[in-house]
Amino acid sequence: MVLLEFSMSPFGKGESLSPYVARILDIVDKSGVTYKLTPMGTILEGEWEKVMLVVTDCFKELEKDCNRISTNIRIDYRKGSTSRMQEKIKSIENKLKKNLSK
Amino acid sequence: MVLLEFSMSPFGKGESLSPYVARILDIVDKSGVTYKLTPMGTILEGEWEKVMLVVTDCFKELEKDCNRISTNIRIDYRKGSTSRMQEKIKSIENKLKKNLSK
Amino acid sequence: MVLLEFSMSPFGKGESLSPYVARILDIVDKSGVTYKLTPMGTILEGEWEKVMLVVTDCFKELEKDCNRISTNIRIDYRKGSTSRMQEKIKSIENKLKKNLSK
Amino acid sequence: MVLLEFSMSPFGKGESLSPYVARILDIVDKSGVTYKLTPMGTILEGEWEKVMLVVTDCFKELEKDCNRISTNIRIDYRKGSTSRMQEKIKSIENKLKKNLSK
Repeated sequence: MVLLEFSMSPFGKGESLSPYVARILDIVDKSGVTYKLTPMGTILEGEWEKVMLVVTDCFKELEKDCNRISTNIRIDYRKGSTSRMQEKIKSIENKLKKNLSK
Repeated sequence: MVLLEFSMSPFGKGESLSPYVARILDIVDKSGVTYKLTPMGTILEGEWEKVMLVVTDCFKELEKDCNRISTNIRIDYRKGSTSRMQEKIKSIENKLKKNLSK
Repeated sequence: MVLLEFSMSPFGKGESLSPYVARILDIVDKSGVTYKLTPMGTILEGEWEKVMLVVTDCFKELEKDCNRISTNIRIDYRKGSTSRMQEKIKSIENKLKKNLSK
Repeated sequence: MVLLEFSMSPFGKGESLSPYVARILDIVDKSGVTYKLTPMGTILEGEWEKVMLVVTDCFKELEKDCNRISTNIRIDYRKGSTSRMQEKIKSIENKLKKNLSK
């Protein structure tokens, strides 16, 4: 299973990117993949091919009307099939014995 | 104001990185800077110098006993002093007229 | 056409990562895709699907014996079919009217 | 010593970013820090504080007339004072016993 965080930003479309991020999130939300929206990107969880396909679908959506697109992807693969979307944060909180801002 | 997401990972310390992430989060939590822990990193909000100083403090902490450290930083600067930690997500949800997983 | 820079690093395999990077570069070099090795990663050039496939092949190679792998991908897409592997650097040098370290 | 790769891109300034990259590279080139320009970013080598200062100087330059700036930084720290700007690539080539595209 992988956790994949990505963001996509078109250039030449002004300073406000939220209309483009909204189109991406609509695809992510309808994909059925487990995800989490953060102030800096979108985190997907699943098998490598499956989450990569969602990222490719998002790119194809923006490619329709954007001439230049910057994409960032960070992937944390760990062998096994357990979901780590919540576990990684809990593990840090347990070690520090306090609640963190999340 | 900038939103800065970062993650730091030592090599040569095994597969489980949570003891090191916990040490970093303790520094972040005590720094007084507005932050948010996600499954893929930590997001700070503040002035460039202030948030960069927190990242440097975290590096110095790990440098004590780690011989190799990989650091990722992504920064979204936008002129003005309004907090965007919540606003960016709300803006996407308003455009899609639905709640997203966050 | 996209320029895609990526790096892959296994955790739990010690501090020196070059044996793993070498296995990845062997795949990249044999893929036939235009590429460039830098001190911080590997830059591929080609169509989205084609370069993504090379990255996936590299992941599958490391997945064989690595339990945790961190992957970073940055993609600069620009409409059109011209190679930008050299052009981006030349364009900066022309603007500054001097040669840069590269 | 750290190897630090970074890129800075303003939004709201059109699709072509080379005028802004040129201003950054002028600062980098005059800083005296060892660097290398690649098609995807600029790699600096030196002590943490020193290279971070160069990145901050570049940000301050763009901040003058850019309202939104996206910055990416990846840092590879390794204990010791040896330059790895060339060594990392040579180490991969030695392992593969062939020359790579660079």
